[in-house]
Amino acid sequence: MSTIAFAGLGAMGRPMAANLIKAGHAVRGIDVNPAALDWLKSQGGTAPGNAREAAAGADVLVLMVVNADQAEAVLFEAGGLDALAPNALVILCATCAPARAIAMAAKVEATQRRFVDAPVSGGVVGAEAGSLTIMAGAPKTIYDTAEPVLQAMGSRLFHVGEKAGDGAMVKTINQLLCGVHIAAAAEALALGERAGLDPSLLLEIYGSSAAGSWMLNNRGPRMLMDDPPVTSAVDIFVKDLGIVLDAGHSTRAPLFLAAAAHQLFLAASGMGLGKADDALVIEAYRAMGPRKD
Amino acid sequence: MSTIAFAGLGAMGRPMAANLIKAGHAVRGIDVNPAALDWLKSQGGTAPGNAREAAAGADVLVLMVVNADQAEAVLFEAGGLDALAPNALVILCATCAPARAIAMAAKVEATQRRFVDAPVSGGVVGAEAGSLTIMAGAPKTIYDTAEPVLQAMGSRLFHVGEKAGDGAMVKTINQLLCGVHIAAAAEALALGERAGLDPSLLLEIYGSSAAGSWMLNNRGPRMLMDDPPVTSAVDIFVKDLGIVLDAGHSTRAPLFLAAAAHQLFLAASGMGLGKADDALVIEAYRAMGPRKD
Repeated sequence: MSTIAFAGLGAMGRPMAANLIKAGHAVRGIDVNPAALDWLKSQGGTAPGNAREAAAGADVLVLMVVNADQAEAVLFEAGGLDALAPNALVILCATCAPARAIAMAAKVEATQRRFVDAPVSGGVVGAEAGSLTIMAGAPKTIYDTAEPVLQAMGSRLFHVGEKAGDGAMVKTINQLLCGVHIAAAAEALALGERAGLDPSLLLEIYGSSAAGSWMLNNRGPRMLMDDPPVTSAVDIFVKDLGIVLDAGHSTRAPLFLAAAAHQLFLAASGMGLGKADDALVIEAYRAMGPRKD
Repeated sequence: MSTIAFAGLGAMGRPMAANLIKAGHAVRGIDVNPAALDWLKSQGGTAPGNAREAAAGADVLVLMVVNADQAEAVLFEAGGLDALAPNALVILCATCAPARAIAMAAKVEATQRRFVDAPVSGGVVGAEAGSLTIMAGAPKTIYDTAEPVLQAMGSRLFHVGEKAGDGAMVKTINQLLCGVHIAAAAEALALGERAGLDPSLLLEIYGSSAAGSWMLNNRGPRMLMDDPPVTSAVDIFVKDLGIVLDAGHSTRAPLFLAAAAHQLFLAASGMGLGKADDALVIEAYRAMGPRKD
């Protein structure tokens, strides 16, 4: 069993850390929120005062923070990296642009520590069940070393490539599909509304057919609610489709649909819906309908 | 049981007509292909020499031809409409633009016959199994009259609206989703290829996740074949997404994703792939990759 420093005890990070504790690891929390650290202690973890102390001599550092900036802050600004045991594993689970993951890996490897680029998908439900999908990029021998730690958090583990950035790219393409499918569902339902059709009936017809997608079935019903619960915000896709377009930019791959979808999430955010559920990207289409005076 | 004139004995039309015969109806074929008419006779149908004779005194005319032009030719040019019994039902199953279905209904209703706008989905497999999805627009009393005929061909029957054009619009939106999902799968897999990832592994990861769509699972594997079998051609989506954009035009509904997807199918057709499987829309993306000299 390992000593694991875990950074980022948010909605996803808390159950992931709890599953590491259940698997027998010693988990030390890193978070700016004191309540999150108290929660970790109640689960059997520990909470040293700062990132350097939490990382001191640890075998593993899991980064489940919000973005690449926060991951770099823990590693390089707060002294987390230098405090780790020699030869420690750094596992980056946050969703980052591939280029950022590659740059982080280079700085980690320069200290002789090992780096695994391992973003996750599956949401809070998957994090709680320990059933996350984990898409890991690292040399195979390093991946094998990390696998027992990953298995405590996820059930669908994929070694997707030999280098840092490969995991981030697989997650990036995942977000391309998710974002385009949400926007496509909005475009379809908004056209149906414009034509005077019953959008609930459309969902029933399409949901189980060749026109179906996971997002149509999941977000479609919320598109028809006046004030849907927020499961993931419009601004998450403003960010993630931005990462998608950066990845297309750096590989010189044109992404016509992702670019159009990004504009629609930007439009919804510009309408003041950035913190609302991402299903409300449909409001961008509705706004381009008949004016109510 | 009814006397039914059935126009359009192609890959879909043949099993649909056979299912009407099995349900006990007297079916008379209309097709320019003599072999199709011979086939219908072998199934227990009849084959008068032309559309006017096939329609003479019939209770029902089913139009399962390729497009609106062919449907109008049977109805108005070949004399099919005027030969039908007074008060006969005309059931338009071909995929047509909503505006064309509306125009056809007006001309049919002017002769006191009744019109049901009833496009289908489910492909040849659904046609053979009698399990098609049928999306019908007509006044409810007329829909109820048509229902026994529709039940012989489909198992998922939806009365989607009270007027002609409603069925065509539901089918149009179905094609919007299908076309965008195919193009999105191509955009995603092409980005993965550009980044050096294994596209088969990407399909395994995404297929059963939040990134999944019916089309990703169905067309994705064919995108990775050198010469995939043709189940539906690129030019079908050139046509159908054209209908989608016309429907958006007439309702003044902007369709950003459908418009982008249409351009990609046009590009693939322009590359000489119009008759190839629609999965090969991915070749448009690949063509915009590194040049092989």
